[in-house]
Amino acid sequence: MFGEIYDVIVVGGGHAGAEAAAAAANMGSKTLLATMNLETIGQMSCNPAMGGIAKGQIVREIDALGGYSGIITDKSAIQFKMLNKSKGPAMWSPRAQSDRRRFSEEWRLMLERTPNVDFYQEMISGLLIENNKVVGVKTSLGIEIKSKSVVLTNGTFLNGLIHIGEKQFGGGRAGEKAATGITEQLVGIGFESGRMKTGTPPRVDGRSLDYSKMIVQPGDARPEKFSYLDTNFLTNQRDCHMTHTSEMVHDLLREGFDRSPMFNGRIKSLGPRYCPSIEDKINRFADKNSHQIFVEPEGWDTVEVYVNGFSTSLPEDVQFKALRSVVGFENVKFFRPGYAIEYDYFPPTQLKHSLETKLIDNLYFAGQINGTTGYEEAASQGLMAGINAHLKINNKEPFILKRDEAYIGVLIDDLITKGTEEPYRMFTSRAEYRTLLRQDNADLRLTPLGYELGIAKKERLIKMEEKEAKSNMFVDFFKNTSVIPEDINPILENVNSALVKQSDKMFKVFSRPKVKMEDMLKLDKVSSFVKEHNLNREVLEQTEVQVKYAGYIAKEKNNADKLQRLENVKIPSNFDYTKLKSLSYEAREKLTAIQPATISQASRISGIKPSDISVLLVFMGR
Amino acid sequence: MFGEIYDVIVVGGGHAGAEAAAAAANMGSKTLLATMNLETIGQMSCNPAMGGIAKGQIVREIDALGGYSGIITDKSAIQFKMLNKSKGPAMWSPRAQSDRRRFSEEWRLMLERTPNVDFYQEMISGLLIENNKVVGVKTSLGIEIKSKSVVLTNGTFLNGLIHIGEKQFGGGRAGEKAATGITEQLVGIGFESGRMKTGTPPRVDGRSLDYSKMIVQPGDARPEKFSYLDTNFLTNQRDCHMTHTSEMVHDLLREGFDRSPMFNGRIKSLGPRYCPSIEDKINRFADKNSHQIFVEPEGWDTVEVYVNGFSTSLPEDVQFKALRSVVGFENVKFFRPGYAIEYDYFPPTQLKHSLETKLIDNLYFAGQINGTTGYEEAASQGLMAGINAHLKINNKEPFILKRDEAYIGVLIDDLITKGTEEPYRMFTSRAEYRTLLRQDNADLRLTPLGYELGIAKKERLIKMEEKEAKSNMFVDFFKNTSVIPEDINPILENVNSALVKQSDKMFKVFSRPKVKMEDMLKLDKVSSFVKEHNLNREVLEQTEVQVKYAGYIAKEKNNADKLQRLENVKIPSNFDYTKLKSLSYEAREKLTAIQPATISQASRISGIKPSDISVLLVFMGR
Repeated sequence: MFGEIYDVIVVGGGHAGAEAAAAAANMGSKTLLATMNLETIGQMSCNPAMGGIAKGQIVREIDALGGYSGIITDKSAIQFKMLNKSKGPAMWSPRAQSDRRRFSEEWRLMLERTPNVDFYQEMISGLLIENNKVVGVKTSLGIEIKSKSVVLTNGTFLNGLIHIGEKQFGGGRAGEKAATGITEQLVGIGFESGRMKTGTPPRVDGRSLDYSKMIVQPGDARPEKFSYLDTNFLTNQRDCHMTHTSEMVHDLLREGFDRSPMFNGRIKSLGPRYCPSIEDKINRFADKNSHQIFVEPEGWDTVEVYVNGFSTSLPEDVQFKALRSVVGFENVKFFRPGYAIEYDYFPPTQLKHSLETKLIDNLYFAGQINGTTGYEEAASQGLMAGINAHLKINNKEPFILKRDEAYIGVLIDDLITKGTEEPYRMFTSRAEYRTLLRQDNADLRLTPLGYELGIAKKERLIKMEEKEAKSNMFVDFFKNTSVIPEDINPILENVNSALVKQSDKMFKVFSRPKVKMEDMLKLDKVSSFVKEHNLNREVLEQTEVQVKYAGYIAKEKNNADKLQRLENVKIPSNFDYTKLKSLSYEAREKLTAIQPATISQASRISGIKPSDISVLLVFMGR
Repeated sequence: MFGEIYDVIVVGGGHAGAEAAAAAANMGSKTLLATMNLETIGQMSCNPAMGGIAKGQIVREIDALGGYSGIITDKSAIQFKMLNKSKGPAMWSPRAQSDRRRFSEEWRLMLERTPNVDFYQEMISGLLIENNKVVGVKTSLGIEIKSKSVVLTNGTFLNGLIHIGEKQFGGGRAGEKAATGITEQLVGIGFESGRMKTGTPPRVDGRSLDYSKMIVQPGDARPEKFSYLDTNFLTNQRDCHMTHTSEMVHDLLREGFDRSPMFNGRIKSLGPRYCPSIEDKINRFADKNSHQIFVEPEGWDTVEVYVNGFSTSLPEDVQFKALRSVVGFENVKFFRPGYAIEYDYFPPTQLKHSLETKLIDNLYFAGQINGTTGYEEAASQGLMAGINAHLKINNKEPFILKRDEAYIGVLIDDLITKGTEEPYRMFTSRAEYRTLLRQDNADLRLTPLGYELGIAKKERLIKMEEKEAKSNMFVDFFKNTSVIPEDINPILENVNSALVKQSDKMFKVFSRPKVKMEDMLKLDKVSSFVKEHNLNREVLEQTEVQVKYAGYIAKEKNNADKLQRLENVKIPSNFDYTKLKSLSYEAREKLTAIQPATISQASRISGIKPSDISVLLVFMGR
């Protein structure tokens, strides 16, 4: 039936699958996106939001490279917030609430408009493998579709098992079937698989809530956006609301604990530590008598509401009774109960940095199948897998982002090097160089790489280069232009900063913590420079960061460069560690299992000691 | 969990369920819409179109009564056509192509905005029954929800079994689970159930088609619309296209016949005779060497295309190979294969005219569960079931439309009286009084009834009354105004109609077949009357029909009135026919089974002879 041989087949149409298909196709690969349901491409299975701390940076990185998640988010956003704006710019994290239906529809339409992407709706139940190389997929109806490479992005569908209270039933998401066959085949080949768990809260009828008892959570007064391209800023936003649980709510929830699959042993796998169910929170933080709940609208028009913070797999009646005791939820009506889901994943230490499996050539894994959690984590892996699948079949070197280049680099290196026992999510604390990995400079960091790969379009590069040139010019202006006390002191006085006695370079004054761009703009010289060079919002922001955090950035860059030298010490593939008797037993075992590509990667494996690294360095001739 | 007792619980959110919930809620019933998936409310499972011959009239009737299908269709339409415009107005049938996603989303939002409608997502797997009366439903998780009445609209979900070639799997629609439990419970109570079959064609990638080889099928130059309310006319439309099969296509399809579930005995149940699969058409009409195929876009933006006329359950590879031989489809790419589905239905002779079941009080069936096919047929039954569920629990008489009042009346009377062995769809030929049951006068026929019921809003009644008053006035104008030969003859000459020799009433000239409203408008007297009274498009159309078909309409009304007399001869319920020995054996058996409410209904039962009716009339004292 499918006569042609695809370059890349992507299995699954979630965040990972959609980015993988778009990336491979945009680089020129004939790509097939195979999914069980073409109506649910880009479905937000859990909360209707993208971004957040560290995750927002990832979306910006995806966008900078030429992925679609940022554009889709901007097109479907109903609220935007820059989180952590009170902290340093390394912590600023964009987050948007999305219209769930719009998000999914925009993904579908974006992919339809991407040349080289074909679609097919059917369950993929097996892989075609020849000589340890994947050569296609097999559908549940028995059709074989040939390809040069395959990206698996099965999300929670592989042998998905849904739990609510004491009930269990198969399913990949509520109301959708689970996928079978792939795990069994891969395990038969020698892959190790495991089970993970995640969960989702009830959805409720917004008309049944009393918002007057909650705290309103509006979007930013001047909302930013995700994409570096010319998507629109929101001119209109929907509010979220905040409320909280109480001891009474906790007591009502505890009444169901004996019927909880979390506590009665039915669910054996681990869930996301930093996105726990409400029963988990009560259990683990027994001293806390209240937890926050964020009430998030599911779209522009719908009355359906997402109860963020109340993820649960307790029996429906317990969920309901407890939620009715939450302030503002006294008359709540349920649309759908919360539930937990267990699914198969493959410990990601079985992958190379390109996300290709070590066991089967040209087979890539991305998203929850690798033990991660989160739309952003999934999307970025999909993007990287799609890029690398394309590069591989074109006999090109894999595209690997380093830890000082992108959160995406940190994410994949963590997965490949350390593995994960519980759903992995990104945090700023996971990055050694977070001052470098900011949301404001993802384009400067990555767009040239994306352009070189052929995934970021020329337009994107031109915009980035203009931003870079203009902000460098503006920084130079501050470095080279002096300001006299008569001009600057009224401004300094206004922000309670010490006055200056003699004229000084603007850069120095601007470096002071209390002095912001908006203050500097009060100087005629500055504002006329801005006007003359037509500097936009992004250039002003970039310049401000470059001036105010110049010291931190330089220092971190220096540290990164030092470590980079270790990164340059490559270890031959399939290196035989057993013959290095001076390595500790644990080191030999772990290094053999993980096969790090560089000394630097070896140093990040848990259990590898500095003394082991010294042994390796000596052996490698350093 | 659900403390309150609902007035009406509607099970299923398709066309029947959505109309049922809206109707009951708009009349004031506290209504719960329970569905397996809240994202698929108002899903168009098969073709992305509403209306068509006889079906378009039904949508107009639904709208006239205060249902939502017409409004939703207008809001989501991408093309509009008035079919049969070359024939008499009784045959004019509106049809619209819809944007599939918009249609579903508009339904969801309309229901959300309807006060009294609550939502709940879960499979309903049983009914709560006490003393032969339904008192609620039970979910698959074991939750009981109490209500005064229940409307079942399960579509193809009850024990749904999907067939493609030799493969079979459970499902209510491709990618969605089947529903279990309800059939088994009802059969246990004493209901008779059966199996029916329906099917759907492949969906394909519009980018892979060569439209230049097909015949373009544009919408009407001046599109009308469905709702009598102020929805918008389309100002922009998408084209459909037409192509056809050939002997080669048929030969390729025949190659798969031995693997066809239709022919190898796997599918035992009957499918819709007038919407057959392509293999069925080839088989039944072996002498035809070509069948039409309509290529219908699935929405405004999507490239997905519906291949109308190519419904099939042949193996995927056969579907694909054959479709590739259709002109314009040489390079077609599949999005999803076609498939057949078997599902449970309940022979509708088990229902009263109100759609309440005879066995269980306050339990209503609507849609495919009654053995019908078609969105319009389903929606109209849903509307009637919703209305009647509300009336029953408020101790009011049921609302029953007569055969001379509405296609909806014909539909339900046919179902209840004759039953159906194969999926029932509406045709104009099923109506005895089709000159009365026109799409242009559904508002005049039904809006007063809908308003009286409390489902049609005042606004609707006012619009209808204005239309009625103005068109009556305009008809009177034509009756009372004369035209002289000098004025009318140039017009008559223009349309090749015999000239007049002396002045005559305009009505008489206008009655001539060749003379249209547009011709009459050339007369100053007419056009100034139109301007003076501000007569709109609908009034002109209505007036034209009233003038030109006055004779037919009067004759049919007379016939209807005569038969109405039989309709007024009621038969007591649970009448014992066995004691009427002069009835034929067959009549006694059928009348006992069906228990007609009137002599007229008895006369429509197949197998009942005029002699049997005479016996009944004598016994009833006439």
